[in-house]
Amino acid sequence: MMAADKAVEYVKSGMVLGLGTGSTAAFVVAKIGQLLKEGKLKDIVGVPTSKRTAEQAASLGIPLSVLDDHPKIDLAIDGADEVDPDLNLVKGRGGALLREKMVEAASSEFIVVIDETKLVEGLGGSQLAMPVEIVQFCWKYNAERLKNLPEVAGCEAKLRMDGDKPYVTDNSNYIVDLYFKTPIKDAHAAAKAISSLEGVVDHGLFLDMATAVIIAGADGITVKTR
Amino acid sequence: MMAADKAVEYVKSGMVLGLGTGSTAAFVVAKIGQLLKEGKLKDIVGVPTSKRTAEQAASLGIPLSVLDDHPKIDLAIDGADEVDPDLNLVKGRGGALLREKMVEAASSEFIVVIDETKLVEGLGGSQLAMPVEIVQFCWKYNAERLKNLPEVAGCEAKLRMDGDKPYVTDNSNYIVDLYFKTPIKDAHAAAKAISSLEGVVDHGLFLDMATAVIIAGADGITVKTR
Repeated sequence: MMAADKAVEYVKSGMVLGLGTGSTAAFVVAKIGQLLKEGKLKDIVGVPTSKRTAEQAASLGIPLSVLDDHPKIDLAIDGADEVDPDLNLVKGRGGALLREKMVEAASSEFIVVIDETKLVEGLGGSQLAMPVEIVQFCWKYNAERLKNLPEVAGCEAKLRMDGDKPYVTDNSNYIVDLYFKTPIKDAHAAAKAISSLEGVVDHGLFLDMATAVIIAGADGITVKTR
Repeated sequence: MMAADKAVEYVKSGMVLGLGTGSTAAFVVAKIGQLLKEGKLKDIVGVPTSKRTAEQAASLGIPLSVLDDHPKIDLAIDGADEVDPDLNLVKGRGGALLREKMVEAASSEFIVVIDETKLVEGLGGSQLAMPVEIVQFCWKYNAERLKNLPEVAGCEAKLRMDGDKPYVTDNSNYIVDLYFKTPIKDAHAAAKAISSLEGVVDHGLFLDMATAVIIAGADGITVKTR
């Protein structure tokens, strides 16, 4: 059984569901659409975390809403870029971090689906991007300030590009990706320091949010809960 | 002597200056332009906090720069909407709060120029707007969450309008104005709670930033320092 199928077992009729973004989330959304079609699930409302997910869900006939109308979500399911032993996450390499965080922070349960390659000893440990969404105004100044925060000492900060232009988020902001040589020592301290900079809109550290992580590994599926 | 003139006495040749936004700041910028023209000030670089101020300063021949190129500012001068006994401020009714905060937080000295009607016992006490800049996505959800924060209990939250459309900031965001019946009890706690909401970009509480406040009153000019 796939990890995405396992996650969908948590979905019950009548739920308001946060729908994640990315390849894993797309499997989950497809499965929910199928169960609705077969009549095995009823009265689902989906709150998508990106335009892309909204389009996929609409094409499958999943009724959609937004946080404005459904501020309380029963269950969100999404992928992650990194998961540490305390179920803290790095997310947002796909660029949808702010909407994902808004929806998932509004969810009573938040299930993360990953394969075991996403497990890290400490966040930043994959040496891949940890995104920070910032306003366009004086982005160089903020990239420099991010790089110089003692809480993320030693990281590199690069403006995310889309061809030869800066990548622009759904919220008209830029993304500065932080790259770490060694894992972040104290992710809570790093999150606080990053958030405290004027012009930072949000960041890819999702701390104390996941209630369960479903891990697909060589030996099958494992579920870790908080 | 005007309070703005008093503030300009702190400006020395060779300084990088943060130029505020609004009617009081416009007096200061005009005066600096005049002193440059008369040769009484030299080698000034101005970092404006809004497009409006940039235009005024450019028209007066004040050399301009941005935080990207001048990340350290010697002195910023600006007005404020409210000033409490600890020199904490409410700013941003003009809509430029994020750029003002970025520039003024980067300044070694930050002088605020007001008339005595802006003095309050506690922030929010003027019963006028305390602005919060938020992303457009699900603004109703965030306005509702702002209103319900225990730290700002009893406030009203209204989307700022520009005619029949929402007002849009220089950073493509919306502004929700908070209105208080009684002053905010703990401004630091309120600032922290407001900032912690996903989708909040910044807010009009400028805490522990002003180094001096110049107050024009019926009995003349008073200078309060931290």
